[in-house]
Amino acid sequence: MNEPLTMVPIGVVHNDVTAAKGVRWQKVVSRIRIAPELASALEGVEAFSHLLVIFGFHQSPAGPAPLQVHPQGRAELPLVGVFATRSPRRPNPIAVTVVELLARTENVLTVRGLDALDGTPVLDLKPYLPRGEQIDKFRVPRWVKQLREMHDQEKDHE
Amino acid sequence: MNEPLTMVPIGVVHNDVTAAKGVRWQKVVSRIRIAPELASALEGVEAFSHLLVIFGFHQSPAGPAPLQVHPQGRAELPLVGVFATRSPRRPNPIAVTVVELLARTENVLTVRGLDALDGTPVLDLKPYLPRGEQIDKFRVPRWVKQLREMHDQEKDHE
Repeated sequence: MNEPLTMVPIGVVHNDVTAAKGVRWQKVVSRIRIAPELASALEGVEAFSHLLVIFGFHQSPAGPAPLQVHPQGRAELPLVGVFATRSPRRPNPIAVTVVELLARTENVLTVRGLDALDGTPVLDLKPYLPRGEQIDKFRVPRWVKQLREMHDQEKDHE
Repeated sequence: MNEPLTMVPIGVVHNDVTAAKGVRWQKVVSRIRIAPELASALEGVEAFSHLLVIFGFHQSPAGPAPLQVHPQGRAELPLVGVFATRSPRRPNPIAVTVVELLARTENVLTVRGLDALDGTPVLDLKPYLPRGEQIDKFRVPRWVKQLREMHDQEKDHE
């Protein structure tokens, strides 16, 4: 089980975001430039409204990730295991984000809602499938709701 | 952008499934055994009903993946780019699946719906978050519906 897996990026993110702090990611429009030799592997993605983008947290600090964190570094939220959070510092620095696909031109996708900095390496793209990603009845801990309220409040104060 | 990323598995899947053909994954119950030294990183995951499991397709054939495929190898469905499908043969053999979390005991999770063979290396676990993964209005191509109908028909004939 411990054999390392090596991933070669398939593309890179281009946008105006160079620092994550305070960014309203839902509104950010990014271009994902896929390696030209992989362009034909995108054929038909434009028929999907949403994609899963798998990318690398390439700016996470080096060294082992902390095993427990306060979600988004907010001390007022409980200390939880890093696998209970979407923290960018994790044992394998992989991110998965659902984005809205706005357009495709050959090897370039335009997407909205990708929470990745300019220059982020992209590892994979997958279609968003209702039977699979669409969970109707789910449960989340209290801190997720608290975090949502904090975000909404911060928006109100902008 | 082309610098390879190396991932070290955080755990391994245990179940009774050694070949994928004909398996009804929604019903499969698996255990995910996380490396004991990472057990504390699971603290609090049990408050979530669903998790994203990121794992490696470790049994995909070696060599470059085809850039276009018929979804699930069904010749009656259109030939599309591999990034428009969830095919296990893809440039980076990464899978993302939403599973139901049934139980956690120290470093072992019991989950339902993980479409991974026995022995599959797990790379990451993330909480399923409604604001993020829960898309209300989405569009999928016609072949996704055809595939769903085929699956339902095959079930009826069991």
